[in-house]
Amino acid sequence: MSERFDLPHARGRTRHLYGAGALDEAPGALAADLAGRDLFLISSDPILERHRSLVEPLLALGARAETLVATDGEAGKAAAEAERLWRRLAALGARRDSVVIAFGGGSVVDLGGFVAGTFHRGIGWVAVPTTLLAQVDAAVGGKTAIDLPEAKNAVGLFHPPLAVVADPAPLATLDRAAIRAGLVEALKTGAVLDAALFDAVEAALGPALEREPGALAAIALGAARVKAALVETDLEEAGARALLNFGHTAGHAFEAAAGFGALSHGDAVAHGIGVALRLSEAVGLPAVDAGRIRAAVDRLGTPPLPALDPEAVLRFLARDKKARDGGVAWVLLDRIGAARYGARVESGRVEAAIRGALLRPGSESL
Amino acid sequence: MSERFDLPHARGRTRHLYGAGALDEAPGALAADLAGRDLFLISSDPILERHRSLVEPLLALGARAETLVATDGEAGKAAAEAERLWRRLAALGARRDSVVIAFGGGSVVDLGGFVAGTFHRGIGWVAVPTTLLAQVDAAVGGKTAIDLPEAKNAVGLFHPPLAVVADPAPLATLDRAAIRAGLVEALKTGAVLDAALFDAVEAALGPALEREPGALAAIALGAARVKAALVETDLEEAGARALLNFGHTAGHAFEAAAGFGALSHGDAVAHGIGVALRLSEAVGLPAVDAGRIRAAVDRLGTPPLPALDPEAVLRFLARDKKARDGGVAWVLLDRIGAARYGARVESGRVEAAIRGALLRPGSESL
Repeated sequence: MSERFDLPHARGRTRHLYGAGALDEAPGALAADLAGRDLFLISSDPILERHRSLVEPLLALGARAETLVATDGEAGKAAAEAERLWRRLAALGARRDSVVIAFGGGSVVDLGGFVAGTFHRGIGWVAVPTTLLAQVDAAVGGKTAIDLPEAKNAVGLFHPPLAVVADPAPLATLDRAAIRAGLVEALKTGAVLDAALFDAVEAALGPALEREPGALAAIALGAARVKAALVETDLEEAGARALLNFGHTAGHAFEAAAGFGALSHGDAVAHGIGVALRLSEAVGLPAVDAGRIRAAVDRLGTPPLPALDPEAVLRFLARDKKARDGGVAWVLLDRIGAARYGARVESGRVEAAIRGALLRPGSESL
Repeated sequence: MSERFDLPHARGRTRHLYGAGALDEAPGALAADLAGRDLFLISSDPILERHRSLVEPLLALGARAETLVATDGEAGKAAAEAERLWRRLAALGARRDSVVIAFGGGSVVDLGGFVAGTFHRGIGWVAVPTTLLAQVDAAVGGKTAIDLPEAKNAVGLFHPPLAVVADPAPLATLDRAAIRAGLVEALKTGAVLDAALFDAVEAALGPALEREPGALAAIALGAARVKAALVETDLEEAGARALLNFGHTAGHAFEAAAGFGALSHGDAVAHGIGVALRLSEAVGLPAVDAGRIRAAVDRLGTPPLPALDPEAVLRFLARDKKARDGGVAWVLLDRIGAARYGARVESGRVEAAIRGALLRPGSESL
C-alpha cells in the first residue's frame, strides 16, 4: 500500500498518495472527490502513448472523461496553450464541479494546475506527476504557473490540488537526465532542510540511478514530505520556502546565459549548488558537509557546463538582484540540514565563484 | 470627504473610498500601500484621454509609474490581451511588490485584476472604476475575469484589490446607456437585498439620469455597501451571492441569442428583470412591489429588445440549466428586499414569460 500524508491549506487539504500502488489505490481513495464528476485529463502525447492505461481506473470514476492533449515539456507552459485548454474545457462543457487531472511531468502539472485554478475562477484538480522531479517538486505545495518569453513561471497562482498521486510506475521510462534532475532536487531538499533525508537519498543513489522503483519511490516520498512540511509553515513563500532556492540563484543565471532550453534546469541547479557550496564554505559550512554534497552530486554524472561568458552570467545574476533590494539574497548552508536565506555575499567573492565554475569543466566545477 | 468602508477577506481587507473627493484623498489614504512601489497603470485610451489627470496624484506616490494601455471595453477581456499585459509587466521589470492600478470601466477592472492576480502568483492592485456600473458591481467583491469566445467571465480568480477608489468625477462623461446600466444594477441590488437601497435609488433616479454627481455618488456608495455586505457573508459565491443573478438568467439568454455585443448587458438585464418579475408574481410577489420595480426600470428608458427567435432564447436558457443539475435555478423575488435562489419554475411558464417579453416591444415587455 502507498504512503499517505495531507497538506492543509486555506480551503482544505491536499491528500498525497505516494509509492507503489498509489495509482491502483487512487480510485478508492478519491472516489468522494471524483465519482460522478466530469473529468478532464490534461496530458501530453508522449505520456499518453506510454502510460495512459495507468490513469484509466481513475478516469472511470467520472460521469465522463475527456482528454485534452497539451504540448509536452516547457513549451507547453505558455499563455497560448493555457488559452487553448480553457477554450477546450468551455467547448466540452466543463463546469464548476468538473475536475482536471494533470498527468505528466512538471510542465504538465504546472500548466494543468494553472488552467484549473483560473477556469471558472478555480475548479478542482488532481496532480498525477510522472517524473521524479515533479513528484518531488512541482506537484507539492500548490504553486501553478506558466512561463512568459520574458521569464519562467512569471504567471500563475496558488491553487492546491485535491490530491497528488505519485506512483513509481511511470518513472520506469524516464531517461537518465530526468532521473538526475529529480535526484538533484531531492539532494538539495535534504541538504537545506533535513539531514535524515539527505542521508537517505545519498544512500539510495546507486539503485535510484538504475531506476529501481523502490528506491525512487522512497526518495520521492521522503523529499515530498519534507517539502510539504516546509510549505505548511509558509504557504505563500514569505520566508522559509525561499530556502528551496539553494543552488537556484547561480543555476538560473547559468540557464539564462545558456539560453533557456540549452541547459536543463536540473543540470543548471547542480552547477548552481556548486557555486552555493563555495560561498557557504567561505562563511562556515564544514568542509566535510560540502564534500559529501559535492560527492553525491558528482555521482549523478551531470554533464559539464557549456562555454558561457562569465559577464553574461553575472548580468543575469544582477537581474535577479533587482528583484530584492540591496543585492542578491543567497541561500547559504550552515551544515547539512540547516540553511539560511537572504545572505549577502561580497560581489568579488561571487564573481570568483562564478568564474571558477565556468573555468573548470565537468563535475570538477562543483 | 469621501465615505469609507472595509471588506475583509482571507488575506486582509479591501478598503473602499467612495464619493466626491475620493480620488483627491486616495494618495493620503493609500500611501502605506503605494509609496515607493513601482506602479503600473492599466487603462484604455478613451479613459486616459478624458481622465488621466484624475489618477496622477495616486501615480505620483510610486517610485515610478508606467502606463499599459488595454483595449477598451469587453474586447479587452481576452486571453491575448492578458498575455500582452503580462509580457509588458515582465519587460518593464514589475516585481512581487509592484502594484497594478486598474483605471476604467468594468472590463478594465476585471482584466486588470486578473492580470494582477496571476502575475508572479498575485501582486497587489487598486481598482479605480470610472463607470457607475463598475463602481456598483465589478470593483466590489474581488472577482476578476477575462472572457473566452465560448463564454463570458469563463476564466478568472478571486483576487481582492488593496483598495477601490470610486469618485463621481469620471462619471460626468458617461453616456446615457452607461448610466442606465449602472442604475439597473443598483435597482436590482436593492430589489433583491435591501428595500432601503431600492427606495433610495428609486428616489434619486431623476437627478441620476441627469448625471448629477451627488446622486450618482450616493447610489454607487449605497449599492456597493450592500453588495460588499453580501460578499462578506459569502466570499466565494456558494450561496447568497447568487441572489445578485436576479434578472440575469433570462438576461444572459437574451444577450446570447442576440449575439454578444448586439444587446448591452445592462439592457439585457433590464429585460431579464421583466421576465423574473413575471415568474415571481406567479409565486407570490405582491403586484405593488412588481409595479414599483417595473416603473423604476421603465424610467431608465431601456430600448426595446431586438427581434429574437424565442426558440434560440430558450435554447440558451437550457444551456444555463446544464450548469445546475435538475433545471434552471431562478432567483425569484418574494418582496422588495427579499429574494430566494434556486427556485424551479415549470417550463411552460418560463416559455410563456420569454415569449411575452419578445412579443411586446419596448418597455411594455417589462
